Amino acid sequence: MIDEFALQCPIPLDDNPTVQMGHGGGGRMTRELIERVFVPVFANEALAPLHDGAILPPARGRLAFTTDTFVVRPLFFRGGDVGTLAVNGTVNDLAMCGARPLYLSAGFILEEGLPIKDLWRVVLSMGAAAKAAGVRVVTGDTKVVDRGHGDGIYINTAGVGVIETDLTIGPGSIRPGDAIVLNGDIGRHGIAVMAEREGLQFESEISSDCAPLAGPVQDLLRAGVEVHCLRDLTRGGLTSALVELGESAALPFRIREDAVPVRDEVRGACEILGLEPFSVANEGRFVAFVPSGQVELARATLGGEGAVIGSVEPRGTDPPFVRVETPLGTTRILDLPSGEQLPRIC
Amino acid sequence: MIDEFALQCPIPLDDNPTVQMGHGGGGRMTRELIERVFVPVFANEALAPLHDGAILPPARGRLAFTTDTFVVRPLFFRGGDVGTLAVNGTVNDLAMCGARPLYLSAGFILEEGLPIKDLWRVVLSMGAAAKAAGVRVVTGDTKVVDRGHGDGIYINTAGVGVIETDLTIGPGSIRPGDAIVLNGDIGRHGIAVMAEREGLQFESEISSDCAPLAGPVQDLLRAGVEVHCLRDLTRGGLTSALVELGESAALPFRIREDAVPVRDEVRGACEILGLEPFSVANEGRFVAFVPSGQVELARATLGGEGAVIGSVEPRGTDPPFVRVETPLGTTRILDLPSGEQLPRIC
Repeated sequence: MIDEFALQCPIPLDDNPTVQMGHGGGGRMTRELIERVFVPVFANEALAPLHDGAILPPARGRLAFTTDTFVVRPLFFRGGDVGTLAVNGTVNDLAMCGARPLYLSAGFILEEGLPIKDLWRVVLSMGAAAKAAGVRVVTGDTKVVDRGHGDGIYINTAGVGVIETDLTIGPGSIRPGDAIVLNGDIGRHGIAVMAEREGLQFESEISSDCAPLAGPVQDLLRAGVEVHCLRDLTRGGLTSALVELGESAALPFRIREDAVPVRDEVRGACEILGLEPFSVANEGRFVAFVPSGQVELARATLGGEGAVIGSVEPRGTDPPFVRVETPLGTTRILDLPSGEQLPRIC
Repeated sequence: MIDEFALQCPIPLDDNPTVQMGHGGGGRMTRELIERVFVPVFANEALAPLHDGAILPPARGRLAFTTDTFVVRPLFFRGGDVGTLAVNGTVNDLAMCGARPLYLSAGFILEEGLPIKDLWRVVLSMGAAAKAAGVRVVTGDTKVVDRGHGDGIYINTAGVGVIETDLTIGPGSIRPGDAIVLNGDIGRHGIAVMAEREGLQFESEISSDCAPLAGPVQDLLRAGVEVHCLRDLTRGGLTSALVELGESAALPFRIREDAVPVRDEVRGACEILGLEPFSVANEGRFVAFVPSGQVELARATLGGEGAVIGSVEPRGTDPPFVRVETPLGTTRILDLPSGEQLPRIC
């Protein structure tokens, strides 16, 4: 986090100014909002001309391009806010392509009446998260919608990165025998947002795991791990990631339930809320599919929290099920939740 | 427009199905929406893997990167809809950087209860507009917000293009003596949206001018016109474009009011609505700053509608005002509207 006292908002906040329709109209007020709220925080050469788009130097290598929109409710929660999510979510989608994230765009939909201090706080979070992830916000857009529409702030970010590895990282590269490595415990982001929204108090406070993943992925690649596929565990959690990858790769997976780290407080909160930790969203967790011979290298590179949670099985006659071995020795088949377990968590 | 009968929605529309919260949850319903609504229309190689991001071949040259969010009300209007706007708006911002547009991302915020047929119609419009502009939608995201929030559909698009010219196109390249060329009549988009929203009937129906501008810009560059700066006339219209460019370039401009084409029906509608045609939004109009010696080449390249509307003056002691000579021989100074003339028109 940028120290809020270190960077003071150029718009005086004492009288609690709010976002007006005119801030989205393309006139003087829009210009002032951009110059006084966004530019001081995102300051960089490419953004400076405030032209219709950013002009960027040629990139050597294949490009990765992705987008994500963030409509989380509430805007602020333990461990982050919509701004940290908006930066890390897109940084992480680029990282999952094996790319080094370079540039972000930021599209804001602001609700008329939003306190400027809330916007400032979110923009500061974005600036801090971008700095931590080594990306620059180079282009943006602001729209304002009438009071009662929107929900304070929706943010879209799109990202461009460069792929410096020759590996083809994606579902099509998953092979039977691959080990499935997870970079840490699951479920904290979704529970942190739900706790904030519902005013729940748990014995130990649960913070979002929101974090940039480009660093760990670049570490794996630099260490020489032949990464076959990467997927971050956002909406739908570990369940959606595994089921979708199994279907895309047309290969069955086998997962050991007790190999998947879940903190006791998350497990407790899930029991209270009637949720399944496997399906709760994360914002700093991913699975890597790597050759079985490189498991130890991958775990060592990811540090203490890396866990081997299962493996890819040979193609069989069954559909490509994801089978989970329970601690009791039974097996269940993982399926996508049909609707939405936790709405509006990212 | 794609013929709606030529491409039938894979989700049967007879029972008027609607968007549910589960369509944004990352589970089975999200997957179905993507596979049955977005993929058939946007179909292309980069989108096909449905991974976290699109992996794209290396681009030779500098990159242009831009974003825009579309919150127009109503969603459908004469001459286009939020989908045509979302594609052309971002294509045009890339074109204004002198770039050839290559790829778009599409981030949807859908309101719970939105008829799937409205979404399908918008997605078809986006597919047709992307085809017409020669770009591909390669990555996307869908979120659903609760009924009563949002306004049916908000769309963010970000775009990536490649700059194949060696020219530096931007406000910093504007020079005293440059001619200012406009590619056609102004004011139709804003009036078309307002007419639809307010249920106004004008004698002759006014359609949005929404159109892709990458073609005309590439034509100018191929013809050898040494383009100094380009700006499309969206929010805030011609007024915002000229005032902002004058301030960025720190140079005064002189505009001849009667050289700016405005259709009689637009002028009439502006009088009824108390609007100034110069400040009404367009979605297919731009100004080009070119050396005075290349004015005829530029006009010939743009075709019959291109008009020379003014020129860049030498730097003076005054602030860089945009002066408009009226048909009466008087002069007025153009300034940014302080608030918003026409809210929610893009």
